[in-house]
Amino acid sequence: MNDDARPLPTGASGVYLYPAAFEQVVAGLRAGIAAMAADEPFQRLAVPPVISRATLERAGYVASFPQLLGTVHSYPGTPAQWAELAPLAATGGDWHREQRIGDLVLLPAACYPVHASLAGRELAEPVRFAVEASCFRQELTSETGRMRSFRMAELVTAGTEEHCLAWRERWLERVTDWLAGLELKPSVEVADDPFFGRGARLYQAAQRMQQLKFELRVELGEGLVQAVASANIHKEHFGEVFGFTAGGEPGQTACTAFGLERITLALLHAHGPRTGEWPDGLRAQLGLDR
Amino acid sequence: MNDDARPLPTGASGVYLYPAAFEQVVAGLRAGIAAMAADEPFQRLAVPPVISRATLERAGYVASFPQLLGTVHSYPGTPAQWAELAPLAATGGDWHREQRIGDLVLLPAACYPVHASLAGRELAEPVRFAVEASCFRQELTSETGRMRSFRMAELVTAGTEEHCLAWRERWLERVTDWLAGLELKPSVEVADDPFFGRGARLYQAAQRMQQLKFELRVELGEGLVQAVASANIHKEHFGEVFGFTAGGEPGQTACTAFGLERITLALLHAHGPRTGEWPDGLRAQLGLDR
Repeated sequence: MNDDARPLPTGASGVYLYPAAFEQVVAGLRAGIAAMAADEPFQRLAVPPVISRATLERAGYVASFPQLLGTVHSYPGTPAQWAELAPLAATGGDWHREQRIGDLVLLPAACYPVHASLAGRELAEPVRFAVEASCFRQELTSETGRMRSFRMAELVTAGTEEHCLAWRERWLERVTDWLAGLELKPSVEVADDPFFGRGARLYQAAQRMQQLKFELRVELGEGLVQAVASANIHKEHFGEVFGFTAGGEPGQTACTAFGLERITLALLHAHGPRTGEWPDGLRAQLGLDR
Repeated sequence: MNDDARPLPTGASGVYLYPAAFEQVVAGLRAGIAAMAADEPFQRLAVPPVISRATLERAGYVASFPQLLGTVHSYPGTPAQWAELAPLAATGGDWHREQRIGDLVLLPAACYPVHASLAGRELAEPVRFAVEASCFRQELTSETGRMRSFRMAELVTAGTEEHCLAWRERWLERVTDWLAGLELKPSVEVADDPFFGRGARLYQAAQRMQQLKFELRVELGEGLVQAVASANIHKEHFGEVFGFTAGGEPGQTACTAFGLERITLALLHAHGPRTGEWPDGLRAQLGLDR
């Protein structure tokens, strides 16, 4: 097999094709995450790259991060009406002027369908989900690791505040150790999300003050440090908006998220583009010799 | 592991979450396709669910299938401008009235980025790619197997007409045998694509007359037969639009496509929702006992 793992540019910024050697590393990371998660009863779900627009509106994503959201539009006309637009498709004209927004948007994070699926439940015990999805964010820059289309693996839990706090603390430590075991020298930082519009700074300050988000950051290029994973609590936000409870109170949630491409890019930066030349121990750890 | 493989509805038509037992079957199908492909030098690529809009315009997809295309739009305004729309996001209003079409669309079939990547090349030898992607089509109905978001595995080749004809013939036979080996009793049918607008019937008749597309159809529900795979030639279409050649002529292309969810749904229909109760031989063939 060709062992050059470098992503292939597509001409669209932040959108790449991934060769077999890259995917082998991704598979190794998935297996590593699954091994860490083996001692908790996670329900595994594969999540598609689109989600109900109403769900994201309800979740507050639209209000908070409109600049990152991709909405899905389609052509509502008849074949006869299309006759007028069809010639524009051949000549680079605005054939798309009649496109209408639909009921779906691009998924910005893997956990949203899970939170929405809890609507109406009283959680007698904590629930746990292990999900992966191809996510989309309309990023304006495209330095290494800043992709518009990327894959996110997430471990998600919902339950009481006490459970979520302890769970996030345990996973923050575990993921830090795992990344250190991959020799990626992660730094752990209190972080915030890129809220948009009025109140953004206030939200970010509150998020930092309450330590809702920790990022694990590693080097992806010379002097270029990016978050490759995060461990987060959302307090009662999703319990309130989707209507689920734990112990009679609005349910709380926590998650730990893994940027599969970013971790792989960090390994590529550390050890070079050819996985065949990576250290034996790392190759074994990622299952590359199978 | 819970062995109930049934997809979980999300509330959005044609969009599902997939449990671990379903994904195990998908993994078995992937391995089966890879095993069939092992005697040809396929280059494996993971393909993201979005693609350059210009590429699909150039490929003729917009002109032929505008009714199925999902275009990706985003908010181009400033945080200050958003202040006017933000309240609408909370109240179900048209916060999306300023969304603008961007440079990406949702990928409708896994092979497009591959065809586009050949631009400018003279193919001295045939090239072969094995790809998988999450695809999107704005389907108007949602009977079993009719999804808007679904995964497609494809084997793609490009070269001379002679090569493509022989390759498609061999793969049509191979895939028919493979599906029969999964006891799915495929029927092989000359088929056409859902062209839209003026000329649609003419295109479809020409496509059938030249036998460009063969579908492999199996039962997914009582009396519900759907195509689960196809074997296609596109003649010099992609060679002409993207500008690659083989033997000095516009390059020709062929592909065989696998609907991973549809094949799995056909197995669920044939053997029931619990994969633990499937016949031993089938379980072994799909690697479900590992």
